Amino acid sequence: MDGHAVSMLGTGLIGDFYTNTLHGQRGRDRVRVVYSRSPARGEAFRQRWDIPESTTDLRVAIEHPETDVVIVALPNFLHEEAVGLVAAAGKAVLCTKPLGRTAEEARRMLDVVERAGVFGGYLEDLCYTPKTLKAIAAVRDGAIGDVTWVRSRETHPGPHSAWFWDGRLTGGGAIIDLGCHCIEIVRNFVGKGNRPLDVMCHTDTLVHPIADEDNAIALIRFESGAVGQFEVSWTFRGGMDLRDEVAGTHGTIWLNHFLRTGFEMFTAGGGAGYVAEKAETSAGWLFPVGDEVSELGYVDMFSDMFRAIDEGRSPQETFYDGVVVNAIMDACYRSAQTGAWEPVELEWRGGTTPRITSEPERHEGLVVIKREVLPDGRHKLILKDEATGDFSDRVV
Amino acid sequence: MDGHAVSMLGTGLIGDFYTNTLHGQRGRDRVRVVYSRSPARGEAFRQRWDIPESTTDLRVAIEHPETDVVIVALPNFLHEEAVGLVAAAGKAVLCTKPLGRTAEEARRMLDVVERAGVFGGYLEDLCYTPKTLKAIAAVRDGAIGDVTWVRSRETHPGPHSAWFWDGRLTGGGAIIDLGCHCIEIVRNFVGKGNRPLDVMCHTDTLVHPIADEDNAIALIRFESGAVGQFEVSWTFRGGMDLRDEVAGTHGTIWLNHFLRTGFEMFTAGGGAGYVAEKAETSAGWLFPVGDEVSELGYVDMFSDMFRAIDEGRSPQETFYDGVVVNAIMDACYRSAQTGAWEPVELEWRGGTTPRITSEPERHEGLVVIKREVLPDGRHKLILKDEATGDFSDRVV
Amino acid sequence: MDGHAVSMLGTGLIGDFYTNTLHGQRGRDRVRVVYSRSPARGEAFRQRWDIPESTTDLRVAIEHPETDVVIVALPNFLHEEAVGLVAAAGKAVLCTKPLGRTAEEARRMLDVVERAGVFGGYLEDLCYTPKTLKAIAAVRDGAIGDVTWVRSRETHPGPHSAWFWDGRLTGGGAIIDLGCHCIEIVRNFVGKGNRPLDVMCHTDTLVHPIADEDNAIALIRFESGAVGQFEVSWTFRGGMDLRDEVAGTHGTIWLNHFLRTGFEMFTAGGGAGYVAEKAETSAGWLFPVGDEVSELGYVDMFSDMFRAIDEGRSPQETFYDGVVVNAIMDACYRSAQTGAWEPVELEWRGGTTPRITSEPERHEGLVVIKREVLPDGRHKLILKDEATGDFSDRVV
Amino acid sequence: MDGHAVSMLGTGLIGDFYTNTLHGQRGRDRVRVVYSRSPARGEAFRQRWDIPESTTDLRVAIEHPETDVVIVALPNFLHEEAVGLVAAAGKAVLCTKPLGRTAEEARRMLDVVERAGVFGGYLEDLCYTPKTLKAIAAVRDGAIGDVTWVRSRETHPGPHSAWFWDGRLTGGGAIIDLGCHCIEIVRNFVGKGNRPLDVMCHTDTLVHPIADEDNAIALIRFESGAVGQFEVSWTFRGGMDLRDEVAGTHGTIWLNHFLRTGFEMFTAGGGAGYVAEKAETSAGWLFPVGDEVSELGYVDMFSDMFRAIDEGRSPQETFYDGVVVNAIMDACYRSAQTGAWEPVELEWRGGTTPRITSEPERHEGLVVIKREVLPDGRHKLILKDEATGDFSDRVV
Repeated sequence: MDGHAVSMLGTGLIGDFYTNTLHGQRGRDRVRVVYSRSPARGEAFRQRWDIPESTTDLRVAIEHPETDVVIVALPNFLHEEAVGLVAAAGKAVLCTKPLGRTAEEARRMLDVVERAGVFGGYLEDLCYTPKTLKAIAAVRDGAIGDVTWVRSRETHPGPHSAWFWDGRLTGGGAIIDLGCHCIEIVRNFVGKGNRPLDVMCHTDTLVHPIADEDNAIALIRFESGAVGQFEVSWTFRGGMDLRDEVAGTHGTIWLNHFLRTGFEMFTAGGGAGYVAEKAETSAGWLFPVGDEVSELGYVDMFSDMFRAIDEGRSPQETFYDGVVVNAIMDACYRSAQTGAWEPVELEWRGGTTPRITSEPERHEGLVVIKREVLPDGRHKLILKDEATGDFSDRVV
Repeated sequence: MDGHAVSMLGTGLIGDFYTNTLHGQRGRDRVRVVYSRSPARGEAFRQRWDIPESTTDLRVAIEHPETDVVIVALPNFLHEEAVGLVAAAGKAVLCTKPLGRTAEEARRMLDVVERAGVFGGYLEDLCYTPKTLKAIAAVRDGAIGDVTWVRSRETHPGPHSAWFWDGRLTGGGAIIDLGCHCIEIVRNFVGKGNRPLDVMCHTDTLVHPIADEDNAIALIRFESGAVGQFEVSWTFRGGMDLRDEVAGTHGTIWLNHFLRTGFEMFTAGGGAGYVAEKAETSAGWLFPVGDEVSELGYVDMFSDMFRAIDEGRSPQETFYDGVVVNAIMDACYRSAQTGAWEPVELEWRGGTTPRITSEPERHEGLVVIKREVLPDGRHKLILKDEATGDFSDRVV
Repeated sequence: MDGHAVSMLGTGLIGDFYTNTLHGQRGRDRVRVVYSRSPARGEAFRQRWDIPESTTDLRVAIEHPETDVVIVALPNFLHEEAVGLVAAAGKAVLCTKPLGRTAEEARRMLDVVERAGVFGGYLEDLCYTPKTLKAIAAVRDGAIGDVTWVRSRETHPGPHSAWFWDGRLTGGGAIIDLGCHCIEIVRNFVGKGNRPLDVMCHTDTLVHPIADEDNAIALIRFESGAVGQFEVSWTFRGGMDLRDEVAGTHGTIWLNHFLRTGFEMFTAGGGAGYVAEKAETSAGWLFPVGDEVSELGYVDMFSDMFRAIDEGRSPQETFYDGVVVNAIMDACYRSAQTGAWEPVELEWRGGTTPRITSEPERHEGLVVIKREVLPDGRHKLILKDEATGDFSDRVV
Repeated sequence: MDGHAVSMLGTGLIGDFYTNTLHGQRGRDRVRVVYSRSPARGEAFRQRWDIPESTTDLRVAIEHPETDVVIVALPNFLHEEAVGLVAAAGKAVLCTKPLGRTAEEARRMLDVVERAGVFGGYLEDLCYTPKTLKAIAAVRDGAIGDVTWVRSRETHPGPHSAWFWDGRLTGGGAIIDLGCHCIEIVRNFVGKGNRPLDVMCHTDTLVHPIADEDNAIALIRFESGAVGQFEVSWTFRGGMDLRDEVAGTHGTIWLNHFLRTGFEMFTAGGGAGYVAEKAETSAGWLFPVGDEVSELGYVDMFSDMFRAIDEGRSPQETFYDGVVVNAIMDACYRSAQTGAWEPVELEWRGGTTPRITSEPERHEGLVVIKREVLPDGRHKLILKDEATGDFSDRVV
């Protein structure tokens, strides 16, 4: 029944989410020490979450004698240094998304962790939402047949913190911030062993006066023939739009994680100081979620990570997954420049996946293109003569 | 960081849900011993949830030297005996819903717990769903003004276990099974200090060949003028319909807990043995929920219970709340017999609540009935002359 | 291909809706003359809808030599006089809802129309929405088995015109304004030959400083055992809530006519003078409907009325239906006073309807209460021994 | 009040929809003669819709002395010949979608109509759905600011008629069948004067054993910077998925035309022969639409066409629009081959559209990237120093 003692690096919004998850409900894992560059922010965080110590020394936090797990919740440009120090300290390291600013950086982080032989977990929360986990399981059980297409969409009006807007620190714009989620969601649905071949991406900066993209759309072609599609934006109006759609040869899945989850509230406003959270407006129709840290996947993500450490197995989302995501994002940025399909450059560990197949049904020597049930119970067949290429229909 | 060690009484569906919640994710509380009348069911439960011991002796389970909390997850007719034994053992007792089969039985259980001075928690999970908790908080913060009406609906095709259908063991039919949830949800929204005055209820047995009601509708009048309304049924088709609606003088809340929560799946069926859970069909459009134990409130419920024990405070849902619910259900059954509004008979501990008030706005000596904003920005007033009772409209 | 020439009585909101419907799209029926008490409003209406004539003389409008149909779109207290004059003129009369202020008044209107032998159509638009028509047809075709329960809900923040608020002119409050719709929707679903037996109603005036009810809830018991339920309010916040739910022994229907119909718009506001219609706010999330006169049933209603005139048959909604609705509303007002179930007093023309029946399935001499399919394909039966009243379960 | 007399060419599903619309409700326009290659189908159609004459001679139908409008409801490969004959006959011609199989063919049809000086209407029904019309009007009124992105999606399990599957007769696969709708919907939202510059398209044949694409995704770049995106498929499972999403600088619009429109029905099946229409299954959860010919835009489309003829103006959708759509589809097919962005080759008549602009707000010399309202009413600004490129945040 023993939990893990955690060194938390970083005191931003994501550090709050992570600690809220760990300390929420009846969890047995606790943050033991928090690191922040700023003594004031570190101390405030320490008090907010009832943590024994804060420090402004990164090494002190990482090498704290009572912790066995280090969570990297720092801005993107600080990931590599932190991961290297944790690996050197021989502790398990859990790193927030995206793993690196580029695939090259991510690969170095993977290398250092693998060489040190420490546990590396990639904190991709949106692959762990309860809906996503159940949907992935349904797909694996064959509920929708072969996956042909996945759309993952994450859009909102833009990040809350200044550093997110600076591509020099993050590695890019909306793709690096949001696209990394979408890519890994897509991979979970098409199958992680399904190799991403190439990418076509369009980016633009339409609203915000910044150097990086505030809007992007990309297509990802996988070995099986499945196509992944992501849409990310920092200019969406109306809240946070977080939806996934999966099409298969025998079924369909639609997930809505945020704006339409069965909680709808109208408020005329002007009440006793009521302010709604995560909404663009504080009056009118609002669409809250229930338990945000559960709905966004944080609870199941940390359960998987800590159990994996306890059981000596890999978590669902590994550092290698982080590398794949970075490689796909690199290809997206190249494609946005060249306007062409760009290959995903990657040392592939995932094996091969056969092409989506459907052996056609036959009827009296003709190929059955479609079979419809008529109201009277008879079947209408649309048939193709392979010799002539002609189509016909017949009721049987 | 120490958790609680639990004696679990009962191995039915609800025992599974409770234990799944306690042992799920990274919880620090564990079931130490499980009681079942049947050695086989007890042993299977023990293995299923990795529990050290099972027993067929109720006292042995309750008095187990290493447990400090006892969870009563037994059929309704066994609650009173079990609660009495736990109180005698001086341990905290958490009892599943409904507390008693009648208000009289529930009152005796409240008495025995209060006399023994032990902690008594009423396991009313649906008052703890994340959506409900957030909605209740919004109502308290004034987001929708004074609550005027609450509808709580819980319907499905009927219970899974045989004993649920036997009113002699349960105390009734769909009201005792489902209405208890709805009543307490209503109370949380109108305010627990808002006294339930009287009840009008209609019941019928429309589909199942049983002696008790398989359908019921009731209205509950509260001291403030607010009205609660519940609809319960064991004959609903399409899955489990679990919805709440709250109307206030300044806003509206709609909650959907099960069939429409942002997870939609179509499956043509016939796949690799896929069977959907909690659905009437295994093909076509299905509407799963994400994490059932979270969405149905079990996670937050046990967090509140154990924290309340740790902090020496009352939980959100107490044995007294269970008594109030039973008193309202008693009034429902009486009303269904008499066809009249029946008073809720209750030793009221909740204080008084003033009538919903709205001081009318006035315009040049007339009462403003309604104010509408016109497209050109002017306001249209509907006015009432209190002397004559005449109505008029005016654009200002 | 000849259409009808119409005398339109009244120039309020409902007159606009009716004329918009008749003159909209490619209709062949036209308003020939419009009556208004006020010359200015009549002239404005005439010009707005391109009508040849307006008049302030009721008789002149009714007896206009070129019209064959008269539409009564006047306030409730003027219906009886107008209908009497139309009947005397020997023309077809279409009267807006509610038919009368009381059943007694409605019955006199039915009598005068039947004695004169003229066509009488009851303009109950919400029974003609395309969704409702298709849902009623599905129920008739057996899609949901026997109807056990119907909920019809119509709520909004209150009427736009002053006279609506004056119970002396209308006959009541929210029930007379909105309940009449709900009652007739319920009747269409349970079957018009299904006699309404008695009524239980709760009313209150919670928000507006008026003499009549601004909120009401009622239950209506029908001969088959089906229960109708309506909820009407002039205090709803968030727009117009117009929903119906139908439960049957083999299925379920949910209709949403206004706030959630697949059209969702967020606007930050402050744009080029954009004002949304029928919404409480002009910014934030808005939920428009597509074509309001179609979605609210006006198009199909007038098609049915004019076709019925052409074909010499009764329309779907007759003056007798209007009388039934008024009789149920009378019972509601009585019940709200007495707090008791009140009989619906009515000269019944509808025949008899048998009790909802379900012949129980049997298994080895026991009654099957419920049959569930398990994941492994076996069936779990819940069984009742009629001799002892005991329940058991068995997997077969 | 005179209507138009129509020659209907074709008796397939679309001919039924068109005639159903014209003869439905109280329309004043009628089909006078119907042409079919097959005497039997022509006669059945004639009787089904109460049409005076049918003929197997195309010229006889077109040159019928009593008709003034000819509707081309024939397979794609017969459009050009029919339009030529109608132009020669000097009558108004309304042609179903897509106008041609290629832009070249469509251009010839435009030429022949313009040279003859007859009215040419492009029957693009999905641009006329009541929701779409209202949404387009809202966009024009500035409700969502500048449009940045439009997604239009139309997918179903494949066409009902054999000829649809034969690319030799139609000009392609899912793009030519469904993409034409999506493209014109996108154009209506971004503005018809907004020039489509180039296109990136991915196609594949994943499920059906045919030569043409059964799945396609495309991006269309417009002069303003807006991006259109369409997704079409003949392999979707679950019914017909018909949705549009529009993002603007100040708002968002989501339209759902078919599967989620506020009409939800569960049926256990096995009832009195009930079969649901347009659904893949006849049991389980079904999602009908209300009035299909209204919801799919046919009613408003024909109203616009006939009014445009009467008023001597252009309709909303012209033959030139049909040419633009074909030109974009041609570019899609080229792009799918080359894997590159392909220019839209087009004689552009639409003028120029400026780039989406947003003049950035400034605060003390810095650019305001984002402004958020905090719960305490203060504003948090994210600021950019244009000289250094550094970002910072400040609360004011």
